[in-house]
Amino acid sequence: MNRVKVGIVGATGYAGVELCRLIMGHPQAELSAISSVSFEGKTLSEVYPAYFHMCDMICGTQEQVLEKSEVIFAALPHGLSQELAAQCVKAGKAFTDLGADFRLESEEEYKEWYGGSFTDKALHQEAVYGLPELFRERIRGKRLIANPGCYTTAVPLALAPALEAGLIQPEGIIADCKSGVTGAGRKPTQGNHYPELNEGFTAYKVAAHRHTPEMEQTLSHIAGQKIKLTFVPHLLPINRGILATCYAKLAPGAELAAIRKAYENRYAGEFFIRLLPDGQCANVKNVRCTNFCDISLFADSRTGTFIAVSAIDNMVKGAAGQAIQNMNLALGIDETAGLKLVPPAF
Amino acid sequence: MNRVKVGIVGATGYAGVELCRLIMGHPQAELSAISSVSFEGKTLSEVYPAYFHMCDMICGTQEQVLEKSEVIFAALPHGLSQELAAQCVKAGKAFTDLGADFRLESEEEYKEWYGGSFTDKALHQEAVYGLPELFRERIRGKRLIANPGCYTTAVPLALAPALEAGLIQPEGIIADCKSGVTGAGRKPTQGNHYPELNEGFTAYKVAAHRHTPEMEQTLSHIAGQKIKLTFVPHLLPINRGILATCYAKLAPGAELAAIRKAYENRYAGEFFIRLLPDGQCANVKNVRCTNFCDISLFADSRTGTFIAVSAIDNMVKGAAGQAIQNMNLALGIDETAGLKLVPPAF
Amino acid sequence: MNRVKVGIVGATGYAGVELCRLIMGHPQAELSAISSVSFEGKTLSEVYPAYFHMCDMICGTQEQVLEKSEVIFAALPHGLSQELAAQCVKAGKAFTDLGADFRLESEEEYKEWYGGSFTDKALHQEAVYGLPELFRERIRGKRLIANPGCYTTAVPLALAPALEAGLIQPEGIIADCKSGVTGAGRKPTQGNHYPELNEGFTAYKVAAHRHTPEMEQTLSHIAGQKIKLTFVPHLLPINRGILATCYAKLAPGAELAAIRKAYENRYAGEFFIRLLPDGQCANVKNVRCTNFCDISLFADSRTGTFIAVSAIDNMVKGAAGQAIQNMNLALGIDETAGLKLVPPAF
Amino acid sequence: MNRVKVGIVGATGYAGVELCRLIMGHPQAELSAISSVSFEGKTLSEVYPAYFHMCDMICGTQEQVLEKSEVIFAALPHGLSQELAAQCVKAGKAFTDLGADFRLESEEEYKEWYGGSFTDKALHQEAVYGLPELFRERIRGKRLIANPGCYTTAVPLALAPALEAGLIQPEGIIADCKSGVTGAGRKPTQGNHYPELNEGFTAYKVAAHRHTPEMEQTLSHIAGQKIKLTFVPHLLPINRGILATCYAKLAPGAELAAIRKAYENRYAGEFFIRLLPDGQCANVKNVRCTNFCDISLFADSRTGTFIAVSAIDNMVKGAAGQAIQNMNLALGIDETAGLKLVPPAF
Repeated sequence: MNRVKVGIVGATGYAGVELCRLIMGHPQAELSAISSVSFEGKTLSEVYPAYFHMCDMICGTQEQVLEKSEVIFAALPHGLSQELAAQCVKAGKAFTDLGADFRLESEEEYKEWYGGSFTDKALHQEAVYGLPELFRERIRGKRLIANPGCYTTAVPLALAPALEAGLIQPEGIIADCKSGVTGAGRKPTQGNHYPELNEGFTAYKVAAHRHTPEMEQTLSHIAGQKIKLTFVPHLLPINRGILATCYAKLAPGAELAAIRKAYENRYAGEFFIRLLPDGQCANVKNVRCTNFCDISLFADSRTGTFIAVSAIDNMVKGAAGQAIQNMNLALGIDETAGLKLVPPAF
Repeated sequence: MNRVKVGIVGATGYAGVELCRLIMGHPQAELSAISSVSFEGKTLSEVYPAYFHMCDMICGTQEQVLEKSEVIFAALPHGLSQELAAQCVKAGKAFTDLGADFRLESEEEYKEWYGGSFTDKALHQEAVYGLPELFRERIRGKRLIANPGCYTTAVPLALAPALEAGLIQPEGIIADCKSGVTGAGRKPTQGNHYPELNEGFTAYKVAAHRHTPEMEQTLSHIAGQKIKLTFVPHLLPINRGILATCYAKLAPGAELAAIRKAYENRYAGEFFIRLLPDGQCANVKNVRCTNFCDISLFADSRTGTFIAVSAIDNMVKGAAGQAIQNMNLALGIDETAGLKLVPPAF
Repeated sequence: MNRVKVGIVGATGYAGVELCRLIMGHPQAELSAISSVSFEGKTLSEVYPAYFHMCDMICGTQEQVLEKSEVIFAALPHGLSQELAAQCVKAGKAFTDLGADFRLESEEEYKEWYGGSFTDKALHQEAVYGLPELFRERIRGKRLIANPGCYTTAVPLALAPALEAGLIQPEGIIADCKSGVTGAGRKPTQGNHYPELNEGFTAYKVAAHRHTPEMEQTLSHIAGQKIKLTFVPHLLPINRGILATCYAKLAPGAELAAIRKAYENRYAGEFFIRLLPDGQCANVKNVRCTNFCDISLFADSRTGTFIAVSAIDNMVKGAAGQAIQNMNLALGIDETAGLKLVPPAF
Repeated sequence: MNRVKVGIVGATGYAGVELCRLIMGHPQAELSAISSVSFEGKTLSEVYPAYFHMCDMICGTQEQVLEKSEVIFAALPHGLSQELAAQCVKAGKAFTDLGADFRLESEEEYKEWYGGSFTDKALHQEAVYGLPELFRERIRGKRLIANPGCYTTAVPLALAPALEAGLIQPEGIIADCKSGVTGAGRKPTQGNHYPELNEGFTAYKVAAHRHTPEMEQTLSHIAGQKIKLTFVPHLLPINRGILATCYAKLAPGAELAAIRKAYENRYAGEFFIRLLPDGQCANVKNVRCTNFCDISLFADSRTGTFIAVSAIDNMVKGAAGQAIQNMNLALGIDETAGLKLVPPAF
């Protein structure tokens, strides 16, 4: 069988290079071309010496990626994907956007949180939101996929079964999330300069992060009613991973055992969801470099509060890995192809 | 003026050695004696080479500490302080317990969460809970002080003014806390072995941590009614610091500006409380090695949620520093003596 | 083709679990059985939750591993492998020791540095030292392999071509090495307790580390004369990796260009050796989770000193990866099978 | 007594803010003014929120610092201090340069390594090199001080007594140094972006670092003959500290006991030098936030090599602390004033 030719636009950012890593190990795909505005003309291994002799492909232009590839992934700053998506669709290429341009269904919300507008409304209609464990059937065979953000994968996966089953109350949900630094991108900033971040810990964009409406959109679909939540992200002094600690009021009469059963049923057969045994808590360490989402469930009977803690690798299940899972699903390949990643234990 | 002779029982644990550090820099106190069960006969600098030529005092016995000191601090595992406290009181020494033995007023709660009982009820009656910013007047002149735990300092200080002013609802409070590793003590464990913790992050004792009833006790005093809260601690791969992200429902009509005003009034003149400017978030980095508690206030108007984020150094304001603040207060010394610590910026 | 049945004795230490990880991803081998004295009866994923649903194999006994496997790897504390090796050889199994029991050819040196003796001298005669890039032909087809230590891989690979070509002087060699913490094992110790190691850095066993005679043995074979060197290891606050900074006097008239040529020739075709371009320095980050040894060459013409800096992952090329490379070589499988590991870029 | 008015030019860099921290705690000095090109008009606490309510002084101009201060410290990029020094001298102010402009005695070497020239040769004649433990008498009463760099403090202090006593050979000295990240400054760079540095380790400027001629100058003065050495710096993923592992050939007949004696004599009474007991190795952790230089001595009798390992805090003894030590010495204040810093143990 021929391998699928996969091209990556924006290959030298953290999500981009993680896509390269995963495609290099994918049995049914091959890296056909990569582009980078910042490093055009350089090899990937000049930018990331870890790939010396493993991937010395030269970063070209967006146009070259389009020409040489059947499937295109874009890992670009928000706002730059709409035009590229249109070109891909016109040229008959499959396109997955790892940015936020196609994630929100409501143009109004997009304007409010991102400050832009939908340049081609038909295109937005065509796009499908790629969170396979919640919306698998809609993704199959699709050509234009909006890949979810990192927080927006961890939080909905942690809450969906309880919400869907009516075992938690739809109001008053809180998502207290902690992310590794790669989520903030590769561009050096004062805040992520090593001595400033190391041995520090803080929250940022408190109740004001752009992923808020995206989580609400997903959870509203699941709940069948409008969900609002309070979302506070924090920055961890580690490279990879998101831990989402999610709080909701238990529905009257709901107990942890029933909730657990709902998760077992909802996620039965899901390779990438690992529902942890009672008493064990999800840890970002255990999902590093993998496409897993580990989920642990707790209840505080003293206060009637349900607590779900999920962990993902923000760059894999929260970005590149999920994009490939979506690609597999869209192309009819085994959904886990290239993603049964054996994690390092330390 | 003669310096107060201060002795430390359990000087080689993290809280104990931090007490040594602070007493060494205190203008009106001096280290009179130290004890350690694990390192009896060794110098402090053999245990902590940072103190070579700075404090080469030999670790003796508890008895020696009692004999040589006017004020005794005990940094012992829970359960070991009751007898020592009785001895100190009998010998006319001032005693501060950094453990949990005298923190809870209710023996029933003590039994439930710690599994022990009050061996001398009169002694427990005498003990005062040492959180100066909330209970200053009760502490003055006292001889037996229960020094609060780390989480139990960070959370009540973050919430008290809003709760006291009726600007948040007393039900449904959530405290999502993140602590540096020193909070778990100096004894090596598998979980805190460097390669296991490094690049990891998880929650522990979810809704089951012993500090829960202590926070509730403090907040109930402040609110004038029984408060229950949901408390989830997490372990950060850093040495020092606690960040407490606290959530509460806004009272009807309450707005952030009014809440801010309540904090400004409540904490006016408090040297160790720094209420941060709007938009800036508390960071454990900024309070390292100091006795400060930084507090930042936010509201999520979309969901009617109040969010207070506080940061302390778990070993200073969360342990040794607060113990000295209490000592100063009890002895009638300037409350900030030895505690105007200039923090390292990085 | 049937997969080779590989068993691991001591599977729950860091080298052992890394062997499990690599065998799980090996196309021509399968994990047949694992043992652990500390965790007998537990699954690998109970010990390392990262493997939940990926390897839930139960830790059995050494005997069970022998019975179920064709190839046995032992990752045991020094001194425990000699008897096991004898059993394996007797039972017709291939055996690789990741400990030090069979590494030294001289029983005298073994006594001096390890304090033990060779219990079966014939067995020691049979054992081959498994550093493929230097001794490949001796390893092919062998059944009893002594897998080199971590420092003893990084240092000889960094120096061998220059020494062999007579371009550096054989006297006065210095190896200043820095290792990640996993090299010290999984057992919690005071020194590797997170708060003690974090933000610290020191040397240990200065000029007294057991890997010294092993390096000298390898370099003496290469040089054709007895080599002695000064070896100082340091402990880095990172999980994985060794950086070896090696110093030697340039031979009269030797220049960097000629030395570089010697390395290019000596390591031509070596998949796992990456000779870095001029001016670029090896970094442990770039070899993490891979079997690569990155080497960079420098000369200080002001002082006539040659400097070679090599980087390996101490748990892969320095332990488990090299063991599998040796297995492949011994069994006649493609030497890189299971070892073309795509590294994470961050 | 009036406190000395101390001004800091370049106060918002890491060395500058560390000067602020130390002056804030100095009993005989006070911070009179600070300047910053990047943050003019902002308070120090806006740049470093750790100083909120501790130092809310506004960053002004260089001119304002001159006007308001008796003693001026400049922590500027190399090349910018010569003119400022001239202004200070002219205005009768004491001036200490924490940069490299006045460190090298040879203009030729300055040109070779820094690319600039001495604009005012008389001024360079006037400048004294401020390494008190080696050149104390020259510093007393001086008004223009060149404060040594970080590596150039750690290496000479580690080697001077042995070299001076003729117990090591003057040829073939190697300094393998490892520095925390603050040494590279506060400006964000790709290499010091958190995810790039974290879990990595490498050497840089191998045998080509600008501190080389400065170390050689100091050691040549001590040895009374021209010394050349090989210097390789490495970058540690920690915030503070330098560990210098220095190698030299033992002089014929020299033994460790005699060398130790030479260090004890040479450094007798030096408060900031801590000669560690036999067998204990210097660790950057033990000198954090202090002005100590810890030194440990070893000999490799197998190869005739002397090994001295020293540790300093690169921002204190390697920059700001030493600058204040020099100021104290120059002004006739107790040399340890403001510098008896009690270190945190963790």
